Amino acid sequence: MNTKPLSGAGTGPSVADYVIASKRCELRHLEHFLQLGKLIQCIGNLVHALQRERGASNVFLGSGGETYARERAAIVRASDEQCVLFHQALAEVHQSLMTQPVSSSLLNHLAGALHGLGGLADLRRRVECLALTAGEATAAYCRLIQRLITVVFEAADTAVDPSIAGSLVAMVHLMNGKEFCGQERAVGSAGFSSGGFDTALSQRMMHLVEAQERCFEVFVSFADDEARELWDRLRAHPREAEIERLRRLGCSVGPYKTLDRSLADRWFTLMTERIDDLKLVEDAVEGSFRARCVDRFAEARHALAHQETLIAALADPQRSDPAQPVLVLCESGLEARPAEAWDSEGVGPQFGRSLFDLVQEQARRLQQMTDELQSAKEALEDRKTQEKAVLLLMRHRNIDNDEAHRVLRKLAMDQGRKLSEVARALVSMADVLT
Amino acid sequence: MNTKPLSGAGTGPSVADYVIASKRCELRHLEHFLQLGKLIQCIGNLVHALQRERGASNVFLGSGGETYARERAAIVRASDEQCVLFHQALAEVHQSLMTQPVSSSLLNHLAGALHGLGGLADLRRRVECLALTAGEATAAYCRLIQRLITVVFEAADTAVDPSIAGSLVAMVHLMNGKEFCGQERAVGSAGFSSGGFDTALSQRMMHLVEAQERCFEVFVSFADDEARELWDRLRAHPREAEIERLRRLGCSVGPYKTLDRSLADRWFTLMTERIDDLKLVEDAVEGSFRARCVDRFAEARHALAHQETLIAALADPQRSDPAQPVLVLCESGLEARPAEAWDSEGVGPQFGRSLFDLVQEQARRLQQMTDELQSAKEALEDRKTQEKAVLLLMRHRNIDNDEAHRVLRKLAMDQGRKLSEVARALVSMADVLT
Repeated sequence: MNTKPLSGAGTGPSVADYVIASKRCELRHLEHFLQLGKLIQCIGNLVHALQRERGASNVFLGSGGETYARERAAIVRASDEQCVLFHQALAEVHQSLMTQPVSSSLLNHLAGALHGLGGLADLRRRVECLALTAGEATAAYCRLIQRLITVVFEAADTAVDPSIAGSLVAMVHLMNGKEFCGQERAVGSAGFSSGGFDTALSQRMMHLVEAQERCFEVFVSFADDEARELWDRLRAHPREAEIERLRRLGCSVGPYKTLDRSLADRWFTLMTERIDDLKLVEDAVEGSFRARCVDRFAEARHALAHQETLIAALADPQRSDPAQPVLVLCESGLEARPAEAWDSEGVGPQFGRSLFDLVQEQARRLQQMTDELQSAKEALEDRKTQEKAVLLLMRHRNIDNDEAHRVLRKLAMDQGRKLSEVARALVSMADVLT
Repeated sequence: MNTKPLSGAGTGPSVADYVIASKRCELRHLEHFLQLGKLIQCIGNLVHALQRERGASNVFLGSGGETYARERAAIVRASDEQCVLFHQALAEVHQSLMTQPVSSSLLNHLAGALHGLGGLADLRRRVECLALTAGEATAAYCRLIQRLITVVFEAADTAVDPSIAGSLVAMVHLMNGKEFCGQERAVGSAGFSSGGFDTALSQRMMHLVEAQERCFEVFVSFADDEARELWDRLRAHPREAEIERLRRLGCSVGPYKTLDRSLADRWFTLMTERIDDLKLVEDAVEGSFRARCVDRFAEARHALAHQETLIAALADPQRSDPAQPVLVLCESGLEARPAEAWDSEGVGPQFGRSLFDLVQEQARRLQQMTDELQSAKEALEDRKTQEKAVLLLMRHRNIDNDEAHRVLRKLAMDQGRKLSEVARALVSMADVLT
């Protein structure tokens, strides 16, 4: 019996097939993100439009339908346009998502987002005929927006390229922070326009401020230079100090004093400007994400073509000096792993040896990518764990979301540990607690 | 502009499309493992054959080619047969691996394994003409076997179904433990046949015993009842006590006493029996892994068909009572998540509501799977981290693999921490250390 001793020389699957397939698999993954890019951009724009629509609907409902009807109608039309663009972008990648599915979870969250958008027309009708309170409308918009952001989160979770994963982690945390900022605008508007913040309102506001800060911290640690510069500029803007002053004013006024109601307009204007500026930062992150997808895809395609050429040359020694590919590989500058890990048998023809250099090079690259991917994965994991810990506390203590966040933060503060550590400890104790 | 308010009713991608696609994506993943199953079985058998071939080659080389030539030739033929079966199994899944690639790393490690097998004929020729020492031949066989086991490791790393991941984690740790046992047989044979163990040999033996134990611990924690029962029986066998006695004897005899050389034969027989028994345990794990793949695939296919029927019925209210699917879903017995997480808008027609129940159910299932997958992923991660820590120590202190393992174990013992914790701490300090 013959076992095809010369790899690559037989008729069955060969070393060359698999080392090329490994690169093709990478390429396909990058293609997936190249395609998702436009969808993610559309989600960012749609979320922004829905945040404006939520704000307009609140003002409209707050006035008992007396003011802002026309402005709101215009804003609804604008977000309808974004809706259409989102559906178009989805239709474009639809076939690819169906035939080359990457993640069950991403697909299911897309179903959730589509379901949310499916309920939008009805939600608007109920706002128009004042069948909802401002609080109910806000909650419905928040859920819809959250579902859209979750799609980006799930997309980030499927990334295997560390630079792409990092971009998406930055983006999803910025989107989340911006959404908390939008919610803070609504809470602040409610407080200022009613002349004061009760305990619940001011606690909610403090929660939203803290939640924003945590998201922005993660964003900053994954953002590229351009986005970070825009972010620093936003933070240095005089508006930030004024917002800070209004936040303190709102939360510190007791129940016996009332606030000047004209502050409501000022608050709304400042926060709207802030949200619009955050959108500019988001656009920068989104632009660099798409540029990275294009770059990484081009690089990977080039590397694959180069490898295919090398393998063809190796298989046909007449065409090339067999020593050359080894030289080409040395240029990569990657340090070799210790001999023990990937040492070759020192046997076999030159073809097998040089081909194996490609296998080793690819193994090193993939290992390096996995190592670099880790911090992005941890950021996503931390977020999931915190959400899980909050749900656990809500269920166990029968408290609401804000209160659960507060308990978690207090636990972290009291123990002098990171929030993510406390959340992990709590989740790991779930069986004992429940 | 119209944004298709009724999900599922429009012409573009719908909620129903994505909730079905999410299930199809799961199904495709399970199909991948159904196909890999046979390949993994062939790898297990091939590894076992190569372990026997390594043993026979050692005896042959140890006798200077004077004994065991015929036995070795028969064993080589037997492992050639396993080689052919492996190549056949690979050819069967080849097309699917090329068109539906799951992991770059798995494909690249398959290339590495094929490369190793490509060098086997040459390795055998060099053994036959005594161009290698027993130690060199052992090292070459070890590398080849390690490459084959790594393919199973990488397959385990791609699993998304927790029961399948758990089976594979059990299998790969058993395979690794069995391989350490095979190496221990070689080291012991060298010691007993030369009349005594020098420090290096007895340290290597102790290292292999400890490494085996760690692998088997992980195996036991992921094994199913049948495999664990076989394992318990293996451990309770009188042979184990005799092996233990020989181990102690080998490692405790100083340089001035010599061991009875007839112990070498006894040692070889005992360890060979042990390895063959470990193969039986492995076959049980492998059998239950394949049964799980078949079961899970059948379940998922049934769930998909059921869901498609439900959706068809929901889309056509004439055909079914719209309340029924909700009832069907309640049977799953899964506890609902708090309302905050997935609360619906309470808007939209019955179709959208019931469809959304499917989305929620799928989200809960996927989340639960991810949670359950965690321990399997951690076991694989721990293993990778330990390998990384060992490589780091080898490079940094310029010591060999065994010594690095010893340093790591000592560190863990001194600090009273788990080996995986110490390894993680070390790897995270890599930048400072190097």
